[in-house]
Amino acid sequence: MANGSAIAGIGATEFAKDSGRSELRLALECATAALNDAGVGAAEVDGLVAYGMDNNDVSDVARYLGCGEITFYAQTPLGGGSACGTVALAALAVATGAANIVIAYRAMNERSGFRYGQPTSYQPGGVPTSFQVNQSWTVPFGMATPAVQVALTARRYMHQYGATSADFGLVAVSSRNYAVTNPQAWFYGRPITLDDHQNSRMIADPIRLLDCCQESDGGVAILVTSLERARDQRQPVVEILGAAQGIAPGYIDMTQRGRDDMAHAADTAVIGRLLWEQSGLTPADIDVANLYDHYSPAVLMSLEALGFCGPGEAPGFVRDEGIGIDGKLPVNTNGGQLSEAYLHGYNGITEVVRQIRGTAVNQVANVQTALVTSGSHVPTSGLVLGRG
Amino acid sequence: MANGSAIAGIGATEFAKDSGRSELRLALECATAALNDAGVGAAEVDGLVAYGMDNNDVSDVARYLGCGEITFYAQTPLGGGSACGTVALAALAVATGAANIVIAYRAMNERSGFRYGQPTSYQPGGVPTSFQVNQSWTVPFGMATPAVQVALTARRYMHQYGATSADFGLVAVSSRNYAVTNPQAWFYGRPITLDDHQNSRMIADPIRLLDCCQESDGGVAILVTSLERARDQRQPVVEILGAAQGIAPGYIDMTQRGRDDMAHAADTAVIGRLLWEQSGLTPADIDVANLYDHYSPAVLMSLEALGFCGPGEAPGFVRDEGIGIDGKLPVNTNGGQLSEAYLHGYNGITEVVRQIRGTAVNQVANVQTALVTSGSHVPTSGLVLGRG
Repeated sequence: MANGSAIAGIGATEFAKDSGRSELRLALECATAALNDAGVGAAEVDGLVAYGMDNNDVSDVARYLGCGEITFYAQTPLGGGSACGTVALAALAVATGAANIVIAYRAMNERSGFRYGQPTSYQPGGVPTSFQVNQSWTVPFGMATPAVQVALTARRYMHQYGATSADFGLVAVSSRNYAVTNPQAWFYGRPITLDDHQNSRMIADPIRLLDCCQESDGGVAILVTSLERARDQRQPVVEILGAAQGIAPGYIDMTQRGRDDMAHAADTAVIGRLLWEQSGLTPADIDVANLYDHYSPAVLMSLEALGFCGPGEAPGFVRDEGIGIDGKLPVNTNGGQLSEAYLHGYNGITEVVRQIRGTAVNQVANVQTALVTSGSHVPTSGLVLGRG
Repeated sequence: MANGSAIAGIGATEFAKDSGRSELRLALECATAALNDAGVGAAEVDGLVAYGMDNNDVSDVARYLGCGEITFYAQTPLGGGSACGTVALAALAVATGAANIVIAYRAMNERSGFRYGQPTSYQPGGVPTSFQVNQSWTVPFGMATPAVQVALTARRYMHQYGATSADFGLVAVSSRNYAVTNPQAWFYGRPITLDDHQNSRMIADPIRLLDCCQESDGGVAILVTSLERARDQRQPVVEILGAAQGIAPGYIDMTQRGRDDMAHAADTAVIGRLLWEQSGLTPADIDVANLYDHYSPAVLMSLEALGFCGPGEAPGFVRDEGIGIDGKLPVNTNGGQLSEAYLHGYNGITEVVRQIRGTAVNQVANVQTALVTSGSHVPTSGLVLGRG
């Protein structure tokens, strides 16, 4: 679906708890950084893809950046599964000639402004959205935050496979280890032990504080163009070998209450199948991965849904094969959203691009291929990237 | 960009002032109608595109329809220029193999629920969107409705080219003529004269009541698939010969305050150029058109931007060449949004599909090609369709 497309530029602001500036400015800063990274002028941008929840209209980003005519623009609907989807849409545009230089972006003051982790309330009046109708069955009974919703699947995963809180903790510790050496990470220089995880306070049983991602202000942009054009630009070429979106049947919300197996990341399994088909690769071929970690159990269930191991085997995979820098599959080498920043999955994309370029802070040796996914247990998306 | 794709099904609810049911139900009804029209089962749907302002999440539509795995989903951002853009995105998906059967939809209780024509107010607090920031410069000074915003461009068009309110009126009368014989139209059986238009009350000078579109409840869905697959389905094949999106530089809002020539539909000109390039056709080749008519002056400025006539020549084109059923270019043969219903441009798409199929109520003889556009003076989109 993404034939002949590549990521030629990445850009980001610093990640902060209070950026001190508008979301629009964050979007323009990261987009400009991506243009500079690629060595492309704003006037050449003819496509824009916004993360669906982004507050910055593509037309405003186009105007302030100084773009020419925009001949492709789109959004990814729904929540945390959209990051790779914006790149997938950009790749479609490039593959079909709808646009030549496409910027996908996500910019938000998610900590100093609207906090997604807080209980949600809706304004009275107005036409209820289908999302609000769904939530009306659960929010009045206390399921008002993402942590509470994810807690159900995490508890089911423990029940079904004998996983423990310590298994989640190993993911958190591994992410933190990467963050300790990453100056961009919130937890730069601040390691934790498994005991720290086990002693951290319960947020929504079995989700502990150290199972939760950051809340962050910041912006990240990705510049997608043709493989041919990317070869003329500044950076080592990162080819898009696979770009997939997926919604498995029965999705209602993160609780998985419409599905038979709550411990199975069904949407992630859809994109996994598509990504292996498109790229011709298998899990064994992947050198480094970035798996969406709004909460640490998601990493385990994603490893299984993507075929890195069988159902229920991810705790053993983490313990025995390893997801650290010397492990079989280094995962979330930037510290992930648990320990670097929560940018709705966008910072995972930039990290795997850096790994392929060979410029990551926690560089894995000789990376040829990388996998990155967006949200788990939600309509989601993923990319397989390779050295072009 | 849409190579090898086709519209194989269309579906709609009735158009009403109070549908008496939820927007979700409207979406499901029109999507089901499109499936039945095409002769395709819901389980085969693997792509969904929502109008960006739609309140029905693609995941909820997928679940209630009974779709299988969804491998492509997207939204069109921004306002009234999105209808054809949803079909364009669907065509991209089909052209690249990201999905095989894609439904694009728009369902809303725009009259009985949230009325877009009313002054907008924003909730205090929260992170302002870039759109709200834009509006903060004009809404406090009274530019709080679409009619007021469009009035500026209409007045400038009159000033620049000597157009008159009666020129706008001829568009309104022509649309009404079509509606009079269309049982789906709000104004079915209710003709008007130019005098009626001239005597209708002023809404926002120079926009009169009869220059304004309807406010409507309803849903419309379009089923897009490959040309090859469409040939196996129930209906005469309607090929997508061109599918374009466009944002010209300097767009802020409908007032065109960021642009030098307010009387020029700059975004429509972008899609016009792309559509002629993609289809290999010229305006002279088009048998029937449906041009977005939230307000009647938009039809005149669109005719010019698309190249059917030169700048300022549209009033003469309407008078001398004609946009009625026997005119040089029949326009908005369903009565348009002025006289059939306001479905954010979606009902214009279904109308031109019917014209190509030969099943329109106001059927133009031997239609081979049709053009349909979305909003004027906003980021927009358009399609050129032909007999497959």
